[in-house]
Amino acid sequence: MKRAIRQHSVSEDEITRFLRTRFPARNALVETGIGDDAAVFRVSSSRKTLVVTTDMLLEDIDFRRAWATPAQLGHKALAVNLSDLAAMGAVALYYIVALALPRPVDPAWVRGFFRGLTSLGRRFDADLIGGDLSSSRSGIGVTITAIGTPAGRRAILRSGGKPGDLLYVTGSLGCSAAGLTLLRSGILQGRSRPERIALRAHRTPEPRCEVGEWLSRSGLVSCLMDLSDGLSSDLPRLCDASGTGGEVCASSLPQFSESASWGCDPLDLAFHGGEDFELLFAATPRKAAILERCYPSSFPPLTRIGVLTAKAGVRWRRIPEAASRPLQKRGYDHFRPQVGRTS
Amino acid sequence: MKRAIRQHSVSEDEITRFLRTRFPARNALVETGIGDDAAVFRVSSSRKTLVVTTDMLLEDIDFRRAWATPAQLGHKALAVNLSDLAAMGAVALYYIVALALPRPVDPAWVRGFFRGLTSLGRRFDADLIGGDLSSSRSGIGVTITAIGTPAGRRAILRSGGKPGDLLYVTGSLGCSAAGLTLLRSGILQGRSRPERIALRAHRTPEPRCEVGEWLSRSGLVSCLMDLSDGLSSDLPRLCDASGTGGEVCASSLPQFSESASWGCDPLDLAFHGGEDFELLFAATPRKAAILERCYPSSFPPLTRIGVLTAKAGVRWRRIPEAASRPLQKRGYDHFRPQVGRTS
Repeated sequence: MKRAIRQHSVSEDEITRFLRTRFPARNALVETGIGDDAAVFRVSSSRKTLVVTTDMLLEDIDFRRAWATPAQLGHKALAVNLSDLAAMGAVALYYIVALALPRPVDPAWVRGFFRGLTSLGRRFDADLIGGDLSSSRSGIGVTITAIGTPAGRRAILRSGGKPGDLLYVTGSLGCSAAGLTLLRSGILQGRSRPERIALRAHRTPEPRCEVGEWLSRSGLVSCLMDLSDGLSSDLPRLCDASGTGGEVCASSLPQFSESASWGCDPLDLAFHGGEDFELLFAATPRKAAILERCYPSSFPPLTRIGVLTAKAGVRWRRIPEAASRPLQKRGYDHFRPQVGRTS
Repeated sequence: MKRAIRQHSVSEDEITRFLRTRFPARNALVETGIGDDAAVFRVSSSRKTLVVTTDMLLEDIDFRRAWATPAQLGHKALAVNLSDLAAMGAVALYYIVALALPRPVDPAWVRGFFRGLTSLGRRFDADLIGGDLSSSRSGIGVTITAIGTPAGRRAILRSGGKPGDLLYVTGSLGCSAAGLTLLRSGILQGRSRPERIALRAHRTPEPRCEVGEWLSRSGLVSCLMDLSDGLSSDLPRLCDASGTGGEVCASSLPQFSESASWGCDPLDLAFHGGEDFELLFAATPRKAAILERCYPSSFPPLTRIGVLTAKAGVRWRRIPEAASRPLQKRGYDHFRPQVGRTS
């Protein structure tokens, strides 16, 4: 761990590992510290558990001002946090916003931002309870911290997976990255339904709060996380935490195939495109059968994409009959930039 | 409220008022939302109350990299949050860090930063439980969210003051701003004891956690806040929240008089210098007498500086016998920059 952080050019995962190893939480009430989608702690003298997460969006790293309205940015800044709570099977209670703004401040921008933010919050009964305002020399920065509580008995961690568990995702993968491709090529208004869907997925992603809540109450899943950096980066995190490997079948992935019409490779985006904010989770074969039967039809589609394996490492095959090969991590890493974000 | 935010060039206070009015918390468990040093909410199905605050430090706004070591920056980033908890009479439990770093990341910098951060946290039994890492195009940014719980029966708000309550501060005022003056003139190492004290106050401020805890348990104070932007900005906030005016006597202020030797005006810095992170509070004359008798001698000095008044507005007099006049707000405002910070 320490060796990793001694080298230059470290990855996010290396820094996270370093912090988790070097600074473990000492308070016995902390159930989950650094390294999951959110932290989990018990409130002393009660059985109540709270879940806390923080996420930062920075101009020209995570968004471009010209590509989104203030309301869309407010929506997205909260959505990424609500997605982290959903990824723990938690429902949101409160959030708090730190906002850095270049001078002079445009009041209309501030109004729009908070309108987008709070209208998403209200939909999921989350209350804005505080914040911090700062001037900035270099663009807009938003950090939101969201607090929630497990919908079921306890938070669902990344670490509960076992070999043989079946892997699922919600919705479709690569849609947000397809929207980003449109924005990069100057298409700010969708001219067709697929373009509008992709732009919406990128600008105002829908956090899977109801799904996270339902999964938590159901008690059916062994591990859970959200897809923020792309399946090829996030699935290895789930597997590492669970002490398993994983295998996915490309032909099973719910690709956003419409993006091919604007020059994208839907499979590539499904594996490596970031910011889908869909849920990734696993269940034992027995519970998976119940899950497939009971999963509400009003929810975003549920797709079985693979399995957790005893052997470490994440592999993929093109079709079920093909040979498997290692899945290269090409999702987004803030310190090793590739595809998927504005930068 | 709305009118204020429609104009260009708004102040922090105007934005805060707009948010508080426009987006009040709807959850009945929220005891204090936007507008105090921190938010306060009850944990459902328990009498337990939690206090949450967030603070952001940005390079070249709140600090310069050349002026502080990574460990000093880590210390300060947490100290400002612990100070907000102390300002509610709360003890810290947990904190969560969002850190934006320019590429390439220097692992030694990251290690130093977290060493400074966590060693302060450990002194006050606060655990680092999570965070978010991001690359940045424009300098370092740190947002910390800290969670605590009232030491006494409930959080102490800004709003509990009554006319006639006596006003107190801890420590001395203007020390941090005097340190900033040294840094600005290129003095990075103190050559005398006062210089070292001033530099330390600016780089590694000591949050008044023990005082906040003691005040909370004592039940003696009616309102409480911390001094982050300077007395001339912060006292009006306390008075506005309490629905009172205030009056302070300059000759009573615990000025950092040694700063005169490097060309500062100690009174000016005591009124308008920011980032002292001392506590400002009030008590009824009866409780004030007990407070003065019982206040532990091991704590930073306690100074009575004035009184809350029935008449709105904050006034000051040079000596007790002099006529009073309005105190101009010249403390730090992020959107109307004057003295006190790096920018």
